[in-house]
Amino acid sequence: MSTDDLTQGLAAALDGRDADVRRQVRDQLIPHAGLLHEADELPRDAYRERVRDLLLEMTKSGLTGLGFPKEYGGAGDVGASIAAFETLALGDLSILVKSGVQFGLFGGAILHLGTERHHEAYLSDVVSGRLLGCFAMTEHGHGSNVAELGTTLTYDPDTDELIVTTTDANAYKDYIGNAAKDGELAVVFANLVVAGEKHGVHAVLVPIRVDGRPAPGVRIEDDGPKMGLNGVDNGRLWFDDVRVPRANLLNRFADITDDGRYESSIENPNRRFFTMLGTLVQGRVSVGGAALGAARSALTIATLYADRRRQFGSGDGQEMLLLDYGQHQRRLLPLIARTYALTFAQEVLREQLHEVFSAPPETVETQTRRELESRAAGTKALATWHATRAIQECREACGGAGYLAANRFAALKADTDVFTTFEGDNTVLLQLVAKGLLTDYASDFEDLDQFGMVRFVTGVAVETVLERTAAHKLLERVRDLLPGGDSWDQEAELRDPEYHLAMLRFREEHMLGGVARRLKRGVDAGGDPAAVFSGVQDHVIASAHAHVERLVLEAFTAKVDKLPDGPTKDLLARVCSLHALGEIERDRAWFLEHGRLSVARSKAISREVGALCRELRPSASTLVEAFSVPRELLRAEDLIG
Amino acid sequence: MSTDDLTQGLAAALDGRDADVRRQVRDQLIPHAGLLHEADELPRDAYRERVRDLLLEMTKSGLTGLGFPKEYGGAGDVGASIAAFETLALGDLSILVKSGVQFGLFGGAILHLGTERHHEAYLSDVVSGRLLGCFAMTEHGHGSNVAELGTTLTYDPDTDELIVTTTDANAYKDYIGNAAKDGELAVVFANLVVAGEKHGVHAVLVPIRVDGRPAPGVRIEDDGPKMGLNGVDNGRLWFDDVRVPRANLLNRFADITDDGRYESSIENPNRRFFTMLGTLVQGRVSVGGAALGAARSALTIATLYADRRRQFGSGDGQEMLLLDYGQHQRRLLPLIARTYALTFAQEVLREQLHEVFSAPPETVETQTRRELESRAAGTKALATWHATRAIQECREACGGAGYLAANRFAALKADTDVFTTFEGDNTVLLQLVAKGLLTDYASDFEDLDQFGMVRFVTGVAVETVLERTAAHKLLERVRDLLPGGDSWDQEAELRDPEYHLAMLRFREEHMLGGVARRLKRGVDAGGDPAAVFSGVQDHVIASAHAHVERLVLEAFTAKVDKLPDGPTKDLLARVCSLHALGEIERDRAWFLEHGRLSVARSKAISREVGALCRELRPSASTLVEAFSVPRELLRAEDLIG
Repeated sequence: MSTDDLTQGLAAALDGRDADVRRQVRDQLIPHAGLLHEADELPRDAYRERVRDLLLEMTKSGLTGLGFPKEYGGAGDVGASIAAFETLALGDLSILVKSGVQFGLFGGAILHLGTERHHEAYLSDVVSGRLLGCFAMTEHGHGSNVAELGTTLTYDPDTDELIVTTTDANAYKDYIGNAAKDGELAVVFANLVVAGEKHGVHAVLVPIRVDGRPAPGVRIEDDGPKMGLNGVDNGRLWFDDVRVPRANLLNRFADITDDGRYESSIENPNRRFFTMLGTLVQGRVSVGGAALGAARSALTIATLYADRRRQFGSGDGQEMLLLDYGQHQRRLLPLIARTYALTFAQEVLREQLHEVFSAPPETVETQTRRELESRAAGTKALATWHATRAIQECREACGGAGYLAANRFAALKADTDVFTTFEGDNTVLLQLVAKGLLTDYASDFEDLDQFGMVRFVTGVAVETVLERTAAHKLLERVRDLLPGGDSWDQEAELRDPEYHLAMLRFREEHMLGGVARRLKRGVDAGGDPAAVFSGVQDHVIASAHAHVERLVLEAFTAKVDKLPDGPTKDLLARVCSLHALGEIERDRAWFLEHGRLSVARSKAISREVGALCRELRPSASTLVEAFSVPRELLRAEDLIG
Repeated sequence: MSTDDLTQGLAAALDGRDADVRRQVRDQLIPHAGLLHEADELPRDAYRERVRDLLLEMTKSGLTGLGFPKEYGGAGDVGASIAAFETLALGDLSILVKSGVQFGLFGGAILHLGTERHHEAYLSDVVSGRLLGCFAMTEHGHGSNVAELGTTLTYDPDTDELIVTTTDANAYKDYIGNAAKDGELAVVFANLVVAGEKHGVHAVLVPIRVDGRPAPGVRIEDDGPKMGLNGVDNGRLWFDDVRVPRANLLNRFADITDDGRYESSIENPNRRFFTMLGTLVQGRVSVGGAALGAARSALTIATLYADRRRQFGSGDGQEMLLLDYGQHQRRLLPLIARTYALTFAQEVLREQLHEVFSAPPETVETQTRRELESRAAGTKALATWHATRAIQECREACGGAGYLAANRFAALKADTDVFTTFEGDNTVLLQLVAKGLLTDYASDFEDLDQFGMVRFVTGVAVETVLERTAAHKLLERVRDLLPGGDSWDQEAELRDPEYHLAMLRFREEHMLGGVARRLKRGVDAGGDPAAVFSGVQDHVIASAHAHVERLVLEAFTAKVDKLPDGPTKDLLARVCSLHALGEIERDRAWFLEHGRLSVARSKAISREVGALCRELRPSASTLVEAFSVPRELLRAEDLIG
């Protein structure tokens, strides 16, 4: 098989179902590659205008609205819409994020939280870009803890209107994309009050700008310069008793009747809130996928550079290629392997999302939705942290040249940095994952905060978790999968995927059991739930992390299994081994501490990681060429020619 | 003792000998705090002008030239000059770097590589800022491997001139500070050719700009926008057979005689080159110290924020402070502790530098110089990596607000990012450290590249290293220091500083011995030195890392020992324990693998780190207040009021 065929085989595996959509988006980005240069040079206002204009031009292709129903100009294809968004991340990331604000958050909220009257009134204009809007959830005082938003939405039966009010100094909406300049309409999240009774957070449509000026009662401030994404006009919004018609309430899950009564199909206010939030899961899936796109660009540049840059003699007069240094292989190859792994995990997530959102809502089990939300949260956290780390490592691996804006890392770093904390702070997201695991996604408890979780876990459910994660049971299950009987973890081949999976499954379950035990012990000893939680929080997060790592490895392993025999499969199997052994090596202290690695085997794993890096070194450029980042978008002419 | 007294006690410990100089620099920065805001808003050209003008204004205080001899306007105080530079890092970092280019690199090269005729002609103008200049070493094709520079310096006996030539497409000087706009004179590093004979890299003074235009034969290009430090005018230089008088050669270590012969007090060309480079060690010391200043700013903001920001309920209606979450303590407190540790390690380095450069050159042993260079390289690597990590963690710990430029992290991240690769790539620097350790700073071998080192180490010296690092000897030495006899590592108190030191010393020596053994085995088996080195490179770097970590801990421990008994000492002792146990925890896999940690003790150490974080939590704000970053320079009004 030629290198080209191999590259294509890998690219096809990475692209998955929507290869054609991805190709179209790449083709669409190439003529606008100049924006990457303009972003360095234009003043902020002009850059914002360019981004808006280009985004509007790109909407014409229909690729930005694939997820919307056909009757409003979309394609009714959620999976394809995520694939398109992921690919958009190969270009300027302000375009990406502005697109995400407009179509994912603003349009998505109208689609998922609104009903036909809102769809009819707005969706066509949203999809075409004629109506630009905002998703006004986060407040200055409340980012992660959205349930505590200070903005109120009070129903006035006299005028049949809703009144939007910024109630205190910290309750203004902050960091809102499209707010500072372009947005005309906002989906505003606020605590609804009807007839003096509070009903929790709801969403309402509020015009914020008319003919380019703030609407009456609305105050708008620019968030000013940011670390990156300066083509997006983030801003702050204050509402001084702004009145909108009752019909502006996005009323899919709750409504105010003609006679002024509040009604909802979901009784529990917390559960209602989380159901509403759940429909917005696409945002997290999108950010995780976009982060991987940015990591692809960085790894492509650093790897191609290392495969042509020579530095220091090798004794025979010719200097040595950077990529022939063991340390350099260790820097880049595991990051490439992890990018593959997370891409396949993202594919599983994207397909599950597509299934859930393509099915009639009433046919989808609550548990399925919760598992999807958990997987989205966890994958987003791991993918965005990975992107931050990979881009940083790649920048350093290109030395001082990596510092010049023309070589792409400046924007990649600055623009993606916020990914780890927006659409859910990664740490908070991993807690969400842990909560799901500890409560088995019990729908009755989805609305608990972490302290509620503490109480719950130490109650009835703890027995279930402890039972399930009892060490002997774990080992029994693993033993049946691998040769070697009770000493499977000594006997298994180091590159056996079943061994890797067994190790990651064991870690996950053992950690989870440990958290449950610690929580129970803390509360049994009469501890305050907040203090108990605080003391065990790093274990909570570690167990969520371990869970998602297992999902990621399962996705990679399953992907390799499904490929037809041949060089592509062989190569990917080795990349998968490198990813799996790299993860076991990274956390080998834990495995040593928990009796799953002997000292000799731990050292053998480190050696095997080094050996895999050397074996994969000749394929390094092929592996990144398969990321399919168009040459025009990489810039970096000095580095990779 | 009041909190204020405690803060002052800590601040005094951090400030060290030059507290007064540091205070003066802080006072000087405050009125220019507005530059931090302007940096976000000004176009690049205007920002550069502001930086130049402010730097020129700041030279008037004399604080930027403290390291130069008194007769040229300096204070002849190397230690104070580093302290001033470190403190300058609390302000805009373009000012810092432009100052470093002008006074450290350009002025430093004239001072250390030139002789009286250059000092008389230039130093007063350099110190006063009347003459701005460049340090033109790095080329596009050669950054780390400076010995291979392509620029040539050819002596023409007919005119008694030196001809500077950019010989090929990759030999142009790149990333040169002050080149794009302000520099008039450059110290150019080039390969000297006299009478057809090559003599290696030497430095020469070349005028590059006259009346604001490139000098004849000099081509200048702007490096354009960078990730950060956009107030510094980095550029590229090409020399088209530019002629300068013979007297422009910086001739402290080598000269061309009146009759056109080359002569040097140092015979070996490589050793000569490394001796010249060695005089420039201040640059690395300065960058490491500056990185710690930037880390201080970031940690101050994130910690003060976490001590007032509440998010998520604690059950009693009031939301909980971020800093009361276990995970948040784990994020910030070890980074604070490590900043203290590296600050004290930097103090030792600064004092050694001061001693070496204050003594008559002929009285300083070569070994002493080599050890200083090694310590400077290692401390720079650890301090700059620490800064990158700490700033990133702090940004994430401030959520979306951390992304706004007004909250300081944008500039901190972007400006410091290059620290890990300039003034020596960190990975290359750690190899330099390892080379010193493996060859015992043997002056005959200082000029070896890594492959030469491989051959050397596997020769005579390997026996010395192996002898010294034999496991039983290591343990013998440790045993005498600690109670518990042979089982000291099981018996010692977890917070005993001697235990921490013993662990880090054991690791260092054991790793070093391992590298020596591996190199020997590789070469004995007939391996090509390049391949042998590549295969063992990660161990080489790890052992250098372990060495520097030991130096850092020794510095911290010694600092605590010297403090008078009292609350400051008690607090710092706990910070030191957190730092030490955090490092042992981070690398506990290695200690488990090498029989120095039992599983039970490994887990106990993780628990102890958690316990120390909880104990130190009430002191967190005090610990960062002692960093003494002026409030005006922190900006971040939304975060810390």
